[in-house]
Amino acid sequence: MKQRILTGDRPTGPLHIGHYVGSLRNRVRLQHEYETYILIADVQALTDNFEHPQKVRDNVLEVALDYLAVGLEPEHATFVIQSMIPEIAELTVFYLNLVTVSHLNQNPTVKSEIQQKGYGSAIPAGFFVYPVSQAADITAFGAHLVPVGDDQLPMIEQTAEIVRRFNRLYAPVLVEPKALLSEVSRLPGLDGKAKMSKSLGNAIFLSDPADVVAQKVRGMYTDPNHLRVEDPGQVEGNPVFAYLDAFDPDKERVQGLKDHYRRGGLGDVKVKRHLLEVLEATLGPIRERRAEFARNMDFVEHTVQQGTARGREVAAATMAAVRAAMRLDYFAQPVLPPAVRDEG
Amino acid sequence: MKQRILTGDRPTGPLHIGHYVGSLRNRVRLQHEYETYILIADVQALTDNFEHPQKVRDNVLEVALDYLAVGLEPEHATFVIQSMIPEIAELTVFYLNLVTVSHLNQNPTVKSEIQQKGYGSAIPAGFFVYPVSQAADITAFGAHLVPVGDDQLPMIEQTAEIVRRFNRLYAPVLVEPKALLSEVSRLPGLDGKAKMSKSLGNAIFLSDPADVVAQKVRGMYTDPNHLRVEDPGQVEGNPVFAYLDAFDPDKERVQGLKDHYRRGGLGDVKVKRHLLEVLEATLGPIRERRAEFARNMDFVEHTVQQGTARGREVAAATMAAVRAAMRLDYFAQPVLPPAVRDEG
Repeated sequence: MKQRILTGDRPTGPLHIGHYVGSLRNRVRLQHEYETYILIADVQALTDNFEHPQKVRDNVLEVALDYLAVGLEPEHATFVIQSMIPEIAELTVFYLNLVTVSHLNQNPTVKSEIQQKGYGSAIPAGFFVYPVSQAADITAFGAHLVPVGDDQLPMIEQTAEIVRRFNRLYAPVLVEPKALLSEVSRLPGLDGKAKMSKSLGNAIFLSDPADVVAQKVRGMYTDPNHLRVEDPGQVEGNPVFAYLDAFDPDKERVQGLKDHYRRGGLGDVKVKRHLLEVLEATLGPIRERRAEFARNMDFVEHTVQQGTARGREVAAATMAAVRAAMRLDYFAQPVLPPAVRDEG
Repeated sequence: MKQRILTGDRPTGPLHIGHYVGSLRNRVRLQHEYETYILIADVQALTDNFEHPQKVRDNVLEVALDYLAVGLEPEHATFVIQSMIPEIAELTVFYLNLVTVSHLNQNPTVKSEIQQKGYGSAIPAGFFVYPVSQAADITAFGAHLVPVGDDQLPMIEQTAEIVRRFNRLYAPVLVEPKALLSEVSRLPGLDGKAKMSKSLGNAIFLSDPADVVAQKVRGMYTDPNHLRVEDPGQVEGNPVFAYLDAFDPDKERVQGLKDHYRRGGLGDVKVKRHLLEVLEATLGPIRERRAEFARNMDFVEHTVQQGTARGREVAAATMAAVRAAMRLDYFAQPVLPPAVRDEG
């Protein structure tokens, strides 16, 4: 039997080429090796976007479109809307008992994100406990592996700790997940900043039209001291070369360009023209597929709905095992979900 | 239309006369004035009993038996098992976004309980966030009023704050609850300690047989300086008189006994004999009803099951409104709960 992996994204905006290089591309490959569940994490997105629910909602299907566009296939990869899996919330509440406040305070990933977001002392409790919610995400689907970069290792370790504690206390019903470490290329922003993100306005989106991509590439930050073509230029910290590293399949050619740029005699305009070509070789087909799927939103919605239903079956099976382990399986006859659900 | 109230108990042991005087007696009266929901709070019990799930489970039906024994009537009071209402967990997760960590740190009720339980810095996160879970309990059932003593006012205020914030941010769908303050008599323990509790071993349980009650009353702490019958005795801090205040309907008689005890000439044995009589006038019929219901556990289980199903309908209706308000109502067709539920 194939092992199961869980990945996902927060639907706070359309996905960009940073997501593509950092995880999407890898997922497209992994979907053939693993039973793949992909969580459209709207509940997690709300932990720091709770004042903008419409934004989160609007991006759920956009993200699904991005998935289909890059080549994730519904037969292999199950797309699941997080908020439609109540079992994740139930597991979160139970797991909160197995983690102390001081332990959460020490989580390095949370620490650095709290700093990044500038919460000061006004940290929303939902954000504070999100490592526990992630443990619920991962275990609800019984994921064996979670593809992450090494900065996410503390999150996986937190999940594994909760799983071990749960299995020891109650019964060994949860799968202890492992990190599936992949060399994660992190793309810098168009402005050369370390991180590409929608909020920084320095991203190329998978949904950007060709002329927008061309315009963004033309405006990219390069070596500010590379004033005349014949000057030697700097490759390090130059996002144009970082993008070439990520997208140009011809590594020798990239090396040649870098050498030339360092020596002098290679103009920014020329390198950027090459980068655009290389980018378009990837983005062109993605854009085409995206437009195709966008003309058939019923299919996209259906895909997400079917995926969510399949995901719910897995999560409900986990929850049934968890209830039995915690002695919370009270009645032989289950309390049936009320009619109000069907009327809604 | 009747207003709705929510009350409840943590099923960590059988209920005792402290519960009776502090809340059960009041509920029996209120059930005729209000639509009453009573939560058997197993999830909350697990926040500080997560290592003892079997204890919690075993006490769920015991507590239901206590409810029936004191005269709560299933036609008026709906008994609901908390863990069978997933909507409470879902609301908890959403409400966590609306409360900051530092705000939770300042909750006086949580503060004092953390001290009482001697957690030090190892506070389980589930316990830390329980004011948020209580907000979920109260609002899931749309309770207008929550019968509490004044020590619980901060909890109700926390709930009201969450409700106001939610209604302002999303849509006015939640009922803002008010405290229904009742003069709460708090019974001291048999040993004169401020609090009666199972863990302190100083309680008279509603399920205690008559001979056990008699033995417990005979062994009660009184004024340790009241050595001979003719000595003057102290009434203050003397639990025997506290119990008389709570259970003897003849207030004049109690006043007479107090005066006599203070003057001297009234022996402990005699007062205790009177107390036992007075207690038995209340506990006798409760014990009888309890034994009757205990012979018909199918009925008790059915009552709880029906109550839980009715409670789930109310909670699901709340959740549907919450989902719509938060723009999380994605599909016209709901994702139907999976078959695995029915097979469980």
